[in-house]
Amino acid sequence: MAGTMRRIVLARPIAGAPSADDFRLEEAPIPDLADGQFLIRTVFCSVDPGTRSRLGGAASYAATLKPGEVIDGFNIGHVAASRNDKFAAGEVLALGGGWADHVISNGRGYIQRIPRADIPLSAWIGVLGVPGMTAWFGLHRVAQMKAGETVLVTSAAGPVGATAGQIARLCGARAIGVAGGAAKCAWVKNEARFAAVVDYKSPDFYECLKAVCEGGVDVLFDNVGAAMIERILPFMKRGGRIVVSGQVADYNNPSPPGMAGLHYFITARLRMEGLVVFDDLRQFPEAQAQVADWIAGGALTYREEMFDGLEAAPAAFAGLFGGESFGRRIVRVGADPT
Amino acid sequence: MAGTMRRIVLARPIAGAPSADDFRLEEAPIPDLADGQFLIRTVFCSVDPGTRSRLGGAASYAATLKPGEVIDGFNIGHVAASRNDKFAAGEVLALGGGWADHVISNGRGYIQRIPRADIPLSAWIGVLGVPGMTAWFGLHRVAQMKAGETVLVTSAAGPVGATAGQIARLCGARAIGVAGGAAKCAWVKNEARFAAVVDYKSPDFYECLKAVCEGGVDVLFDNVGAAMIERILPFMKRGGRIVVSGQVADYNNPSPPGMAGLHYFITARLRMEGLVVFDDLRQFPEAQAQVADWIAGGALTYREEMFDGLEAAPAAFAGLFGGESFGRRIVRVGADPT
Repeated sequence: MAGTMRRIVLARPIAGAPSADDFRLEEAPIPDLADGQFLIRTVFCSVDPGTRSRLGGAASYAATLKPGEVIDGFNIGHVAASRNDKFAAGEVLALGGGWADHVISNGRGYIQRIPRADIPLSAWIGVLGVPGMTAWFGLHRVAQMKAGETVLVTSAAGPVGATAGQIARLCGARAIGVAGGAAKCAWVKNEARFAAVVDYKSPDFYECLKAVCEGGVDVLFDNVGAAMIERILPFMKRGGRIVVSGQVADYNNPSPPGMAGLHYFITARLRMEGLVVFDDLRQFPEAQAQVADWIAGGALTYREEMFDGLEAAPAAFAGLFGGESFGRRIVRVGADPT
Repeated sequence: MAGTMRRIVLARPIAGAPSADDFRLEEAPIPDLADGQFLIRTVFCSVDPGTRSRLGGAASYAATLKPGEVIDGFNIGHVAASRNDKFAAGEVLALGGGWADHVISNGRGYIQRIPRADIPLSAWIGVLGVPGMTAWFGLHRVAQMKAGETVLVTSAAGPVGATAGQIARLCGARAIGVAGGAAKCAWVKNEARFAAVVDYKSPDFYECLKAVCEGGVDVLFDNVGAAMIERILPFMKRGGRIVVSGQVADYNNPSPPGMAGLHYFITARLRMEGLVVFDDLRQFPEAQAQVADWIAGGALTYREEMFDGLEAAPAAFAGLFGGESFGRRIVRVGADPT
């Protein structure tokens, strides 16, 4: 295959907050495909806060990337050439590819055909991709959420949190959101239609939290980290469940704060559990069908921040940690073939 | 009913470590029994670390006691007089009565007849009482322990921990203990027959812990608190469960440490859950029958520290928090009628 591929790699292990210098754009000739391989041309790729933990200087989810390795991300792309019987040229896929305009796959790992055309393509790496599915399986499998329960969602304007609160609402639960700043809070309340929202940047955050949590919280769906969970523990109802979905406040911190208040786990018989949504991969289609129907019917919404060009990925990524991002951050890498 | 009753009450809310001055011995005439009441003469009563959280100055499990209220504890006693059809004079009971030589009951709350005579009476407020049942239901209901798993138990020479490790062993799991000092460690290894034990007072505690946890921990049964759990998190296996049973290291601390390492909950899909064993009250008889059979057959052992006289209770209680206690602390209050 003739041509050049561009990708963004780790320039050096990152300590603290990421900056553009921590990354490097590389070009390389597109290699010939081996038997079983196929080439994907990226249309969109995502920047994901969880990736931070693989870039050094912090507690790690998975093996740390070495300098020179392509940064993780999810891609929407189309098959440009194939030597794999299962994937034909022209097919449109969602996959874990990384920050690259071309990805070579052998068909293993997270890779999925886009099952319907009535939803914008980028949604399949957002509300219908890993963030949305994390919301779904966090609430359903991990928290065993029931109608009538109160579900508190942190980082509620983010792609996981916004989806979680809306799924909760659509399943008959009461969704309360925590988000930062007036614009996000307004969106969470008016667009995502949570029952209530609290601004964590407000000086009376704790009082507001107390007021909206008055009846008690059955499910805490947390995307923020230990300090946030600690503040909410006193409001948890007996038998409450805490979904550990992410720690966006802690990823850049080599010594993140601890969570005090363990006695609430006894008093209130709390259960706290983490998830990695790839464990639920086989159940994605069913969940995606429901969420896509809700989107198509106008019952569930999502917000994206679109960045143009692969070289925009590092800055888009760096902005995930200070609270500036507002919705799913997606990088437009190539032309949409559909 | 003529006569005098003696009881130990809270003299003042406690800040920090308890001392004898925080308690007061009171005498009062034994009141006449009302309809439905019966009078229990205490033989043994227990001192329980969890009671600390009800005595002020710390995060609380339950409503805080007021000065003048009798201190919580579990009692073995016999019915001295009864105006309740269900409890006859002469019956021997285990109950939640408190630090008192006489207890008036209406038959509600935690109260149980001693079902067999082949086990020493005091065991029914220890290995066969709330500590032993906490071990049983923590492992079975909360952790869903399976044969072949590795179970790490902290405070392993204590009444909950020692029972937990032995139940684990007898159910085909590998029990590892953490205890403080050579004497306790020797007992845990040689008498309670844990597979391995680590001394948390040893300067190379963490290295030793690492060595015994090499294959990974499926179940952490913790009686100590946040800082201990935090140290063990890196050793938890994927799908590991953490039973929050008690926080003996934190009860005297108004600002207990937090637990860092929440990212392990995601990486390893950990689940952490607290229990209050009274939720399992209906299942006590079945569990007690099994544990009593193991004791009778010599498969399971327990250790007691016996204190003489009700007035010994405050000092026995105070000694629960600095690591000096070694086994179930029981106060002999009256004569054994059996």
